[in-house]
Amino acid sequence: MPKSDRISNSQPTSDGLHPPTLSSDDHIPLRMWIRLVTCYHLMEIRLRTELRTNFDNTLPRFDLMSQLYRHPKGLKMGDLSRLLMVTSGNMTGMTDRLVVEGLIQRFDDPKDRRAYHVSLTPKGKKLFQKMAVQHERWITSLLGDLDETELHEIHDVLGKLKLHLTTQSQAA
Amino acid sequence: MPKSDRISNSQPTSDGLHPPTLSSDDHIPLRMWIRLVTCYHLMEIRLRTELRTNFDNTLPRFDLMSQLYRHPKGLKMGDLSRLLMVTSGNMTGMTDRLVVEGLIQRFDDPKDRRAYHVSLTPKGKKLFQKMAVQHERWITSLLGDLDETELHEIHDVLGKLKLHLTTQSQAA
Repeated sequence: MPKSDRISNSQPTSDGLHPPTLSSDDHIPLRMWIRLVTCYHLMEIRLRTELRTNFDNTLPRFDLMSQLYRHPKGLKMGDLSRLLMVTSGNMTGMTDRLVVEGLIQRFDDPKDRRAYHVSLTPKGKKLFQKMAVQHERWITSLLGDLDETELHEIHDVLGKLKLHLTTQSQAA
Repeated sequence: MPKSDRISNSQPTSDGLHPPTLSSDDHIPLRMWIRLVTCYHLMEIRLRTELRTNFDNTLPRFDLMSQLYRHPKGLKMGDLSRLLMVTSGNMTGMTDRLVVEGLIQRFDDPKDRRAYHVSLTPKGKKLFQKMAVQHERWITSLLGDLDETELHEIHDVLGKLKLHLTTQSQAA
């Protein structure tokens, strides 16, 4: 039985205090957050499985290649870590493997001798484009039960939330 | 500078193919998903920071204690792994530490000599209750810019999505 099936019926995390006997108007921020976490995990598990099955690839590698696709001139390792929200240590191992596989390349930073940049190779770019097309199809299929109005509703409300969270962080 | 501030301005992952020049109606499922991922990560980083700062604790430990709080009679290790969507290996190290700290306790399963259960100790239950009250306050504050209607909107649409994802998994 694949992992995605095993996990799909599990209960959401982080909701220890609130049994289902609470009326639906109680604790709505917490309940909304728990549902978001659950949907995020269910979607992520499915996307991981699809990437592994179809491309023998992982989500962190896909995300790394995605950032390099958006920055065709390449990125410093530190900037890449920041964009991907991972530590430099994890980043180094992953980029090493992608270099060995010929999917990305390293080059020196002419302005900073201690730093180096990475960028996609033509082979890496081609693979990423193939994966990205499928990635969007999987997402469209997974979200298939939501109509345009509902997608726009969540998109807009989450846009407001994102702005709020970013502003809070900057003010902190 | 704390990690949460460093990371707050980073761009969302997994959207490599779609520069901001696309009109807002294009690729709406993908755009909605990317926004959900971004909000999830921004919220998670803030919650991690709050748990660490206020309780010297981590989200995986909080989630584990949360599941045990919901199951006062205790859980088998395997069921705990499944509920938390983590591997048994990671679970063992984490439970070992929580036992040493006196927050959870192990006991044998009378029906299965190979398995054992874990449950919260009174000390663990007390700590979890304190953390959970704060956890809900942080979430309510982080979601503070959204009004009741918006919270209900996302909650309801995500409920539909969750049902769809769960049904898809069961049918697979």
